[in-house]
Amino acid sequence: MDITSVNNEQVKDAVRLQQKKYRDSEDKFLLEGFKAIQEAFYAGLKIEKVFVIFGRESSYSFLKDKIILTTEAVVEKISTTESAPDAVAIAYKKHYSNNILKAAKKVVLLENVKDLGNLGTILRTSAAFGVDAVILYGDCADIYNPKCVRASVGNLWKIPVYNFKNIDDLKIFEDFQRIATLPRAENFLRDLKTSKKCLVMFGSEADGLSGELIKFSTEHVKIEMKSNVESLNLSVSCAIVLYKIFI
Amino acid sequence: MDITSVNNEQVKDAVRLQQKKYRDSEDKFLLEGFKAIQEAFYAGLKIEKVFVIFGRESSYSFLKDKIILTTEAVVEKISTTESAPDAVAIAYKKHYSNNILKAAKKVVLLENVKDLGNLGTILRTSAAFGVDAVILYGDCADIYNPKCVRASVGNLWKIPVYNFKNIDDLKIFEDFQRIATLPRAENFLRDLKTSKKCLVMFGSEADGLSGELIKFSTEHVKIEMKSNVESLNLSVSCAIVLYKIFI
Repeated sequence: MDITSVNNEQVKDAVRLQQKKYRDSEDKFLLEGFKAIQEAFYAGLKIEKVFVIFGRESSYSFLKDKIILTTEAVVEKISTTESAPDAVAIAYKKHYSNNILKAAKKVVLLENVKDLGNLGTILRTSAAFGVDAVILYGDCADIYNPKCVRASVGNLWKIPVYNFKNIDDLKIFEDFQRIATLPRAENFLRDLKTSKKCLVMFGSEADGLSGELIKFSTEHVKIEMKSNVESLNLSVSCAIVLYKIFI
Repeated sequence: MDITSVNNEQVKDAVRLQQKKYRDSEDKFLLEGFKAIQEAFYAGLKIEKVFVIFGRESSYSFLKDKIILTTEAVVEKISTTESAPDAVAIAYKKHYSNNILKAAKKVVLLENVKDLGNLGTILRTSAAFGVDAVILYGDCADIYNPKCVRASVGNLWKIPVYNFKNIDDLKIFEDFQRIATLPRAENFLRDLKTSKKCLVMFGSEADGLSGELIKFSTEHVKIEMKSNVESLNLSVSCAIVLYKIFI
């Protein structure tokens, strides 16, 4: 047994990663349970250490020298789930080079999207439809939030994700067709002609796209509907637009 | 004040409606909070009574003779949410005639779908795309579950929903084109030719459609994808298929 006390400094450091400010300053995050740890490892993420309950270490042999054998109480303390997993790992966040964006042709931008369920679903759909990158613009949910990591198992590492804050960060898309999806647009999705390089932009369900991004767009589209429902769910809208444009 | 004790029989009866077996036997369910109560009322649902916290009754004047003035503790006891709303109502479930199905041309069938989030989103999408009815087949989640009622606010009453258990119940669709969406189908969605009357069938994410319904179908389709993600989220798949077929 390497660590037996929940007051151990390494344990305290790990617990801090439940909070966004520490994930940001440390550039690390938590992976909870076998499946999440294994998928991240095979997707090439760098894992710093893994706290494993003593006796359960045989499944984690791929992380041999990173294993810290500990008690159930310690794993429970670090974990954010109701029932504690076998193990919790600390991994380094994944950073993607801007060269990927320079070569990209299909990019999705989400502005101020805070719903982790929508975010996870949109990453999954984007990966399925061959999107090259996803931009989280403004104040989006943190994909390294344990809840998002858990909900997106297997999809979070299949597509490059960038966090951009300022309109200047979007200069890289100046030669793209920049499509704003707006419920009150005059043009329908079915009539959209797309070019080789497309940036497709979505706002949050509550607020839609900001004036800044609408101004930045080269065209506006809306999804055809037959009824008086105010709007579609964000991940649904996104899926329909990506299917229509990219498939 | 009409009721002050959380042990009042009317309160106990209301609390029982948190459970499916009582919702089924009583044919009633709970509506929590102003928005849910108001929307159900204006959608024509019959409301039996509404427990309102004393002092907050002015917003509920449209339910005048059905108001029971009570304490915060009583509303909290009946409510299933973390922070209790102003009021909780008991409403009668809505039943739709089979004549609607006889006249229907666009029908969605969901088999064994237990995820309330997916269910709510699919009802919303179906309403937006002019679907005439949704069939919940086999062992689906209960749309009268308080969590589903809450998540679907405003969409639950916009489209007729039927609960069918047996394949014989589906005889009404014998002259429909019956489309099974299967991840391993040989035909792509883009090549699908649809006729005037369509039943589109989806299984759960975990199990897909049963052999029984695959046998019942007249054709199989899959959504084109560009990547190796195992599958799309169910509400996303459903949205893409409905957009392609019905819009």
